[in-house]
Amino acid sequence: MQKHNVVIGIDIGGTTTSFGFVDRSGALLCEETLATQGTQPAYTLVSRLHDSIGKLRLTLPPAASIAGIGIGAPNANYLRGTVEHPVNLNWGASVNLAELFRQQFNLPVAVTNDANAAAIGEMLFGGARGMKHVIVITLGTGLGSGIIANGELLYGADGFAGELGHTTVDPEGRRCACGKRGCLETYVSATGLCRTLTELLELSPDPSLLRESAISRLTSKQIYEAACLGDTYALAAFDATARTLGMKLADAVAHTNPEAIFLSGGVAAAGDLLIIPTRRYMEEFLFTPYKGKVQLLRSELPEGSGAILGAAALAWNEVDTKTNATHP
Amino acid sequence: MQKHNVVIGIDIGGTTTSFGFVDRSGALLCEETLATQGTQPAYTLVSRLHDSIGKLRLTLPPAASIAGIGIGAPNANYLRGTVEHPVNLNWGASVNLAELFRQQFNLPVAVTNDANAAAIGEMLFGGARGMKHVIVITLGTGLGSGIIANGELLYGADGFAGELGHTTVDPEGRRCACGKRGCLETYVSATGLCRTLTELLELSPDPSLLRESAISRLTSKQIYEAACLGDTYALAAFDATARTLGMKLADAVAHTNPEAIFLSGGVAAAGDLLIIPTRRYMEEFLFTPYKGKVQLLRSELPEGSGAILGAAALAWNEVDTKTNATHP
Repeated sequence: MQKHNVVIGIDIGGTTTSFGFVDRSGALLCEETLATQGTQPAYTLVSRLHDSIGKLRLTLPPAASIAGIGIGAPNANYLRGTVEHPVNLNWGASVNLAELFRQQFNLPVAVTNDANAAAIGEMLFGGARGMKHVIVITLGTGLGSGIIANGELLYGADGFAGELGHTTVDPEGRRCACGKRGCLETYVSATGLCRTLTELLELSPDPSLLRESAISRLTSKQIYEAACLGDTYALAAFDATARTLGMKLADAVAHTNPEAIFLSGGVAAAGDLLIIPTRRYMEEFLFTPYKGKVQLLRSELPEGSGAILGAAALAWNEVDTKTNATHP
Repeated sequence: MQKHNVVIGIDIGGTTTSFGFVDRSGALLCEETLATQGTQPAYTLVSRLHDSIGKLRLTLPPAASIAGIGIGAPNANYLRGTVEHPVNLNWGASVNLAELFRQQFNLPVAVTNDANAAAIGEMLFGGARGMKHVIVITLGTGLGSGIIANGELLYGADGFAGELGHTTVDPEGRRCACGKRGCLETYVSATGLCRTLTELLELSPDPSLLRESAISRLTSKQIYEAACLGDTYALAAFDATARTLGMKLADAVAHTNPEAIFLSGGVAAAGDLLIIPTRRYMEEFLFTPYKGKVQLLRSELPEGSGAILGAAALAWNEVDTKTNATHP
């Protein structure tokens, strides 16, 4: 019998919280969801999770032993274990989520943001296994990123390394929810893709499958489907997105020189439609010493359960680094 | 008597090669220069350095013992110990400089590019002592950079991490010597400053202290002196440079989240004229979680001998990491 053979991975979203037990190999043994109820205080969610996880545990073999808990959450800071100023949760300026979980579960706890969890997940369980220098980009409503350098997630001085979504594409560009102008995520994300398509439609009266859709109803999935049917505007929107992403990924390479960049999240599900042109633009913008040396790949973590696996990977990483005492 | 109490620091430039003995504390005990003679093969320079260093060693106390050699060189790759495609040296596509030095001196050798050496120098002997997350920007003819993450220089997958000079400011912008368009160093560097001033003069007929200077003769030092005398164009050129640098430094923070950024090199000698507006623009472009948390400072390494000290720091770093066997 093996001791400590599973961890709990938790993905806290604005609406839904998913959780499950994950073993050493990254197998998701069982999973469950509950409503986040973001208007309630954080400790209410932690308490409800304690109950639900207790029930889910009964489905595991009796010999199973839990090594730790990993949590991916919006606006989470790994160094402090906090969630700070979350947009869709009524948790105030700062909640020490790691401490709440530690008190409730009495287990090692690690908290980080979704994109960092995705990066650790890719390194431990996904396509980045064996790689030491990697960037993972999550393309959903916004653009998140996690940077692996020398085989470890880069947290930086303040726990906020890897916020490529808020690098500047155009200082006079689109207004971002963060208050700045021209941030990468206003161009490259589900929202950014819709904004690009809307702009393109406004520039010309030519027919498009998407012209009927009211701007407010337009989704990135509709644009993807229209692109698959050959719609000129949808294809142009993907091309513009790929160019901006390719340019900024080339910048990212000039910072940390990864061997591979992985795209994950909803928009990355567009697959070749996005990855092939992004790869071409990235190569075009790469500084000569990097050309032909950086792979652009799609995440190998399964779409739905990727975030739980990422959070579980964070827990395993925490357990391992605490055991080896090599972590700062 | 202490064993291995000095290292040799060597700064290979296109025209001049400087070298000296440096102790643990970063004190430059003695230094010397010789002509690089870049038309000759690399081994000729290594052999001439061996002779000159042998002579310089006679000025040290007999008890002095050399721990290793650090070399800063253009287009140098730390991971491979090579100099690749140097622009101003007739050394061919790739020379294994580390191996040449090892054969000639029989000592531990580390080779890296100037900006990486400057970053390690700042961390071991300069203003970044005690810091773990730092970016050092060298502003000379071009723009070099070295990134410290978790207390170690970031080399990346291929030894070329930290080439911020070739991140893109404007994809339709100025042509760069690297073959791309709109690279940061075409705007922010001695050359970039001169190009900005020339463009500003062309846009308006108003008088300027610098209008007389032929474009080919214009230097960043002249622009600095004119700015100190209140010349509108010179001040505007510094302001434009500061804005572009501030914007790209804010991007750099969103990658590696350093606690401080240091500016060194010739253009950084402009001091407050550059640093004060750059700090203001950087703050403006910073993503909210970073605001007010990243220091922008001038290098504390002495201007003339900074590169030797940086190379020496690289040597000490090499000796220490080899001793502790923590380096990959």
